[in-house]
Amino acid sequence: MSTAPTSRDLLLLNGPNLGTLGTREPGVYGTTTLAEVEKAVALRLSRAGYGLRSEQHDGEGELIRALHKHRDTVAAIVNPGALMIAGWSLRDALADYPAPWAEVHISNVWARESFRHNSVVSPLAVGVIAGFGTHGYELAAEALLRRLESAEGTGK
Amino acid sequence: MSTAPTSRDLLLLNGPNLGTLGTREPGVYGTTTLAEVEKAVALRLSRAGYGLRSEQHDGEGELIRALHKHRDTVAAIVNPGALMIAGWSLRDALADYPAPWAEVHISNVWARESFRHNSVVSPLAVGVIAGFGTHGYELAAEALLRRLESAEGTGK
Amino acid sequence: MSTAPTSRDLLLLNGPNLGTLGTREPGVYGTTTLAEVEKAVALRLSRAGYGLRSEQHDGEGELIRALHKHRDTVAAIVNPGALMIAGWSLRDALADYPAPWAEVHISNVWARESFRHNSVVSPLAVGVIAGFGTHGYELAAEALLRRLESAEGTGK
Amino acid sequence: MSTAPTSRDLLLLNGPNLGTLGTREPGVYGTTTLAEVEKAVALRLSRAGYGLRSEQHDGEGELIRALHKHRDTVAAIVNPGALMIAGWSLRDALADYPAPWAEVHISNVWARESFRHNSVVSPLAVGVIAGFGTHGYELAAEALLRRLESAEGTGK
Amino acid sequence: MSTAPTSRDLLLLNGPNLGTLGTREPGVYGTTTLAEVEKAVALRLSRAGYGLRSEQHDGEGELIRALHKHRDTVAAIVNPGALMIAGWSLRDALADYPAPWAEVHISNVWARESFRHNSVVSPLAVGVIAGFGTHGYELAAEALLRRLESAEGTGK
Amino acid sequence: MSTAPTSRDLLLLNGPNLGTLGTREPGVYGTTTLAEVEKAVALRLSRAGYGLRSEQHDGEGELIRALHKHRDTVAAIVNPGALMIAGWSLRDALADYPAPWAEVHISNVWARESFRHNSVVSPLAVGVIAGFGTHGYELAAEALLRRLESAEGTGK
Amino acid sequence: MSTAPTSRDLLLLNGPNLGTLGTREPGVYGTTTLAEVEKAVALRLSRAGYGLRSEQHDGEGELIRALHKHRDTVAAIVNPGALMIAGWSLRDALADYPAPWAEVHISNVWARESFRHNSVVSPLAVGVIAGFGTHGYELAAEALLRRLESAEGTGK
Amino acid sequence: MSTAPTSRDLLLLNGPNLGTLGTREPGVYGTTTLAEVEKAVALRLSRAGYGLRSEQHDGEGELIRALHKHRDTVAAIVNPGALMIAGWSLRDALADYPAPWAEVHISNVWARESFRHNSVVSPLAVGVIAGFGTHGYELAAEALLRRLESAEGTGK
Amino acid sequence: MSTAPTSRDLLLLNGPNLGTLGTREPGVYGTTTLAEVEKAVALRLSRAGYGLRSEQHDGEGELIRALHKHRDTVAAIVNPGALMIAGWSLRDALADYPAPWAEVHISNVWARESFRHNSVVSPLAVGVIAGFGTHGYELAAEALLRRLESAEGTGK
Amino acid sequence: MSTAPTSRDLLLLNGPNLGTLGTREPGVYGTTTLAEVEKAVALRLSRAGYGLRSEQHDGEGELIRALHKHRDTVAAIVNPGALMIAGWSLRDALADYPAPWAEVHISNVWARESFRHNSVVSPLAVGVIAGFGTHGYELAAEALLRRLESAEGTGK
Amino acid sequence: MSTAPTSRDLLLLNGPNLGTLGTREPGVYGTTTLAEVEKAVALRLSRAGYGLRSEQHDGEGELIRALHKHRDTVAAIVNPGALMIAGWSLRDALADYPAPWAEVHISNVWARESFRHNSVVSPLAVGVIAGFGTHGYELAAEALLRRLESAEGTGK
Amino acid sequence: MSTAPTSRDLLLLNGPNLGTLGTREPGVYGTTTLAEVEKAVALRLSRAGYGLRSEQHDGEGELIRALHKHRDTVAAIVNPGALMIAGWSLRDALADYPAPWAEVHISNVWARESFRHNSVVSPLAVGVIAGFGTHGYELAAEALLRRLESAEGTGK
Repeated sequence: MSTAPTSRDLLLLNGPNLGTLGTREPGVYGTTTLAEVEKAVALRLSRAGYGLRSEQHDGEGELIRALHKHRDTVAAIVNPGALMIAGWSLRDALADYPAPWAEVHISNVWARESFRHNSVVSPLAVGVIAGFGTHGYELAAEALLRRLESAEGTGK
Repeated sequence: MSTAPTSRDLLLLNGPNLGTLGTREPGVYGTTTLAEVEKAVALRLSRAGYGLRSEQHDGEGELIRALHKHRDTVAAIVNPGALMIAGWSLRDALADYPAPWAEVHISNVWARESFRHNSVVSPLAVGVIAGFGTHGYELAAEALLRRLESAEGTGK
Repeated sequence: MSTAPTSRDLLLLNGPNLGTLGTREPGVYGTTTLAEVEKAVALRLSRAGYGLRSEQHDGEGELIRALHKHRDTVAAIVNPGALMIAGWSLRDALADYPAPWAEVHISNVWARESFRHNSVVSPLAVGVIAGFGTHGYELAAEALLRRLESAEGTGK
Repeated sequence: MSTAPTSRDLLLLNGPNLGTLGTREPGVYGTTTLAEVEKAVALRLSRAGYGLRSEQHDGEGELIRALHKHRDTVAAIVNPGALMIAGWSLRDALADYPAPWAEVHISNVWARESFRHNSVVSPLAVGVIAGFGTHGYELAAEALLRRLESAEGTGK
Repeated sequence: MSTAPTSRDLLLLNGPNLGTLGTREPGVYGTTTLAEVEKAVALRLSRAGYGLRSEQHDGEGELIRALHKHRDTVAAIVNPGALMIAGWSLRDALADYPAPWAEVHISNVWARESFRHNSVVSPLAVGVIAGFGTHGYELAAEALLRRLESAEGTGK
Repeated sequence: MSTAPTSRDLLLLNGPNLGTLGTREPGVYGTTTLAEVEKAVALRLSRAGYGLRSEQHDGEGELIRALHKHRDTVAAIVNPGALMIAGWSLRDALADYPAPWAEVHISNVWARESFRHNSVVSPLAVGVIAGFGTHGYELAAEALLRRLESAEGTGK
Repeated sequence: MSTAPTSRDLLLLNGPNLGTLGTREPGVYGTTTLAEVEKAVALRLSRAGYGLRSEQHDGEGELIRALHKHRDTVAAIVNPGALMIAGWSLRDALADYPAPWAEVHISNVWARESFRHNSVVSPLAVGVIAGFGTHGYELAAEALLRRLESAEGTGK
Repeated sequence: MSTAPTSRDLLLLNGPNLGTLGTREPGVYGTTTLAEVEKAVALRLSRAGYGLRSEQHDGEGELIRALHKHRDTVAAIVNPGALMIAGWSLRDALADYPAPWAEVHISNVWARESFRHNSVVSPLAVGVIAGFGTHGYELAAEALLRRLESAEGTGK
Repeated sequence: MSTAPTSRDLLLLNGPNLGTLGTREPGVYGTTTLAEVEKAVALRLSRAGYGLRSEQHDGEGELIRALHKHRDTVAAIVNPGALMIAGWSLRDALADYPAPWAEVHISNVWARESFRHNSVVSPLAVGVIAGFGTHGYELAAEALLRRLESAEGTGK
Repeated sequence: MSTAPTSRDLLLLNGPNLGTLGTREPGVYGTTTLAEVEKAVALRLSRAGYGLRSEQHDGEGELIRALHKHRDTVAAIVNPGALMIAGWSLRDALADYPAPWAEVHISNVWARESFRHNSVVSPLAVGVIAGFGTHGYELAAEALLRRLESAEGTGK
Repeated sequence: MSTAPTSRDLLLLNGPNLGTLGTREPGVYGTTTLAEVEKAVALRLSRAGYGLRSEQHDGEGELIRALHKHRDTVAAIVNPGALMIAGWSLRDALADYPAPWAEVHISNVWARESFRHNSVVSPLAVGVIAGFGTHGYELAAEALLRRLESAEGTGK
Repeated sequence: MSTAPTSRDLLLLNGPNLGTLGTREPGVYGTTTLAEVEKAVALRLSRAGYGLRSEQHDGEGELIRALHKHRDTVAAIVNPGALMIAGWSLRDALADYPAPWAEVHISNVWARESFRHNSVVSPLAVGVIAGFGTHGYELAAEALLRRLESAEGTGK
């Protein structure tokens, strides 16, 4: 069903409100900016011979288009933001994304309001990392690299 | 409440991810592309003296604007995609659309995940057709034409 | 599991209260009688070289027996009436029916009482058509013919 | 957490479908247009020495961007439209908006369909005004002015 | 929608298991037989110039057919038995029955198991009488006669 | 547990808002006043050698006190009004009332809003009569008299 | 159904515990007393040529009686207090109140415990104002005056 | 309440769709036919000096009549089929059946769809056997014989 | 928030139907009267140098007024009776009561009907004692005295 | 069913994590250790001529074995800890424990997380004491002694 | 996935409280002891050339270890006791057990409290036998032997 | 509340059935054994100057005791296994554990059965890692090390 990726890039996709990372509710989300996150992840990936493409959008339609556009990436790190709650269209787009991807949440969503306890996209992810701040993006990169490098890495 | 349509066109409105029709999850959605669907529907309509306008958007806001823009159409065929699940704003726009419209789903949504078993827009549609692949668009056109042509066709 | 049908007939199966079609609550169900429906569907089928067998029963047991009796048909159009709500035995019989079948509802059940919003038989149907009045039976015939005629028609 | 606003303006933010105010379902929403609402609110504010910035968008992403853009306003009047139902991303943006804001609904949402009875953004608002037609916007302006002018006005 | 009844008869319709009245679980249902009930009700009706037709069936389909057959009666007393719980097809038939009808239960269903606390047919009845044993049938006859005789008796 | 009643009176107990009977929402509750109801019921009882005591209160505490005060009555007809929904204290008082009692509702509560579909006091009543207008009080008197007069009348 | 009001007065009706306004939980309800609220509202009304009658009761029965007593008022401002949660009898009385009324809550009930998120009386109000402290009473007066003064003011 | 059975026969009662045993969905229900089941059970019973009467019906009404007709049997083996889900009328008939009975399901219903996880008749059975294929009928016969033969066998 | 109590009295507050203690359902509530309870509790308190004020009311409004009236007491023992189920206004009054209080139930409410398993006032109590008959009042007095006497007694 | 106890001892049974009493979350559970609790309870019991046996276990199986081992005790004080939530096996063991027992919780569980609001063992206890800190154990001892000493003490 | 069993033994695994069989609540569980059950089952198995290993534990951890220890058995009879309700860890161990196993309950769990109506381990069993007392263990042995001996016995 | 850890060790705590890692359901859990996991984690920790203590238990009581025993560790990696579902006692022990800890699941629990979608211990963890196989333990170690090393590492 899925065709082989034609690039050596991973996609970093951030959803609504994550463009303000570092300034928005720092008590919850920390002070690291999105640019700093991108830099740290790209560095880790480049050491393994991979590149990074990063997109952040506040609208679900734009996120869907980004996923379609970067179908040639080998893996993705996705923070759906609050679209984890009712982002069914994003879910459909992720179901159609041909490579493995990891879901990241900066905060421990299960320690917050109950409407954040269930993510509609999680069943489609390889795995989920939540609660470790922006370090979670690096851990996700690490996890996906391990998967890509292992013999069992079968493209999703 | 609704003013008389001023055109002889129907609107074909497709929601998120339907632009990839024919390539996305062909096991579920088949191999017919959206362009082929538009052609088949337009052909059927032209034989009855009607035209077709087609729009596809991945964002809910864009779909709402399309509905406002094409208020002069005589009927609509709407596939809300996953917006069937929580597209309440699209629902409000459809409630304000003055002509009759039919809801189409390519797959049998009731044979899939439970979150696809209830469409928030269905109560506002004339009727629903689901599970017959892309042929469903043609059946919807057929159904709306019958309605337009019959004596009882009262504009919604 | 299913044996090849041995006839060129489709089955039209109507459930409880549909024998009064045309006279019962015409505001909801229209004025077309069941005989007129049968005639219109049979005409459409005969043009494609298929026959029609029609049964209507008010009792679930009788509907089940009808399904067993007509196992040799190539497809079925089924309006379960209110058995859509709790007709689990009919569901079991439909699960055992070897050919593809389409579910039809005359009214848009999602625009009516909430207990009509979920059909226990829908997950087993090829597809569902609801809300287009008695024209829905013809649309279902059309849909099943397309399926029978297409290369992909694999007998369910 | 929140920085002091740097302007003397209030933000009037209207969600999906509210651009058609005055023409859409007048039986529910009245005949006053959005331009007339803006004029009435601006007049009231100017008498108190405040300005008004008004934005209306049909897409959730655009509304989020508008909130980010107008972070320097001293208060906001927000009508989320149907995003009150599942607009979790808008909720996150409102949680990050540093000034007090009031939620307005034109109709009495509790006298309508049950899916309109709970607003996901209400817990973050100073208060809610619903059911008083477009007059509600003026009442909200009045309420926020009282708050801004009172000794207790502490910036949210 | 409903045509004027052409008879002076009331229908007494009893559902599943009520044929064993007087012998079945007498601790719950008493020792009066169905024949004795019919006699008592008929006597009361005849004094007011009305006749009685009585049917009892264990199958839902048969009950539906009985309702269709006796459409010319002026009113009905219906004890749906356990079909009160999931007899949606019977409900549809009662919705199509043109005259007023009263629902009777011999026992106080709300003092029994919780699955007997909600009757799917009650919303369509004129009224409900439960818990007064077989006397309830006579009370229902009394109530319907009062209704038939009063100036407000408008045929449902 | 219950002592033998020392009077020949029945109690007619009406709950909140029933004092306005005949003037309040006549479309729902009819035009008969409470005084007329009392007169009709008393007449029926006096023919059987029983008296009537009638109380109406808008407060739950007052209704409870009335039940305590009239513990010597032989039976009661109780219309709890909207206390059917959450009148748990009234329920406790009824559980302590030593004689049999019948619950009456003027309208068919199951044809109204869903919050009126379950009465917390019904499980303690002998039976329930609903939907037959103010005639229901007379039917309840009839039912209780039959019970009092029958050999099986065992005092609850 | 409703008769024309015969006075130029509005009713201010406050429910349980609101007599302690200004002293009870000032962190939640502020320090303004009920007498100060009455004075402010009366002042505003007198400028428009209307009078004010104010009642506060801790018991639901007393509130119901107050509504019956002041049926001749032209509008009402009602703060049901915690009766918003299960005050079904008060709801019935409000349904029978012939003039338009507004519901006021001092605090933003949706920012508090979940049992305060649904008011059983709201569907019957013209509109709801919550969260703006005691200023909410003045806003409600303003809203009702606008309604009374407008051409559309039709008595509810 | 129950009279002593007057025969030495057990009743084998099979519900909807079980007449097709051996041919219907053999992957789920196996290839043994109902006739073979009857033969095996009758053989086991005859060795213990008991006879067998077997009935299979697709309609609930017919099953109820069969239970009434065979009230003189000493025990029953009942496979309600899908009537386990909503067969409330059958439940009432089983409640009135005077002898002990065992419920049998061929498949492990808890390993199938969730609507098969609760049987409305189980609370009335002596016990339940599910998942052991058609062997379950023999196990049920064995269990009932043990019970009939033991000193504790008290007729239900 | 709470002012220091100005008396050495505890309040004993009993809700609906508790005035009949000793005579009402003795199987559930025992034979000790309320007067005997008051005497036993007062004796225990007087030995520790405290007084007792006791009030019992059947109406919620009266109970609320009693709580306001006795705000100067140092602690309270409250048996809300059935107001534990939906006494939200009483809850608000208890939230405003400035001293610590204990909830007492005579019976073990969790061994009774499910609607008695959750008390809306418990979250505001210091603690709860249920099931030990009228001895529970004495245990509550003991518990509150220990608290008043201990160094940690901080007035709630 | 239960044999007469053969000892003069009460059992004090504490569940998971209660061995750390006095050190674990002192803000919630206080600073009194389990040894101090045992000493205080034993002292109270010895004055009445009873002994105490105390066991604390973190595993449900060990608690069950302790209950079996001490079946000869005359009463028990049980703090199930978090096994109140899903300790169904402990519940079965308590159902088999032949003497009366009281449930104790140190904190007011209804003022904590919602999963602590329902105890699966409470329906089997004589009564429940919660929220009075470690003093609750002494109150429970007091309550059980009163019961043992009273004439009505019948061994459960 | 599962390796072939290396023994000719079946495992009889009994959960919490089943060690007291024969003495605990004999009205529910009968008077047969666990030793007698083991003897009867072993006898039946030995006749077919199989051995029996029996373990009973009150702790879930011990039951899990027993399952790991006896992985070489050819089949198992498991009575999980109350661990049927929330024994998710036992469930995981059973999912890993390589041979077929049958679930046994001594009582008819569906005729008892509702929390016993769903077993979390049933979906993994071959089948379930409940309600036939300790005879159920023998029936389960019979069922597993039939399965082992039949041609279709494939080791789970 | 928490005392400073006195060691340089982390705790690796594995719950029920995880001792069979590498052999149990390898399709779900992979082929790496627990010993290999321990080795990999210890290696990573030793490079940062930390030690590792590892415990695995099938019983909840034993896991709780392990947590008490290793209170001096600086952080913990916890895989609760199926105790994530109802391990409330383990949750209480984790709440009392003074250092930060991370929750690890080998499989993506949200892609499995719905009863694995909610972990009762997650709200207490720093964060959660699931779906990355046994690599997840190393990622958790990485995450905790980052936290310990950062300036913000405040001991939980």
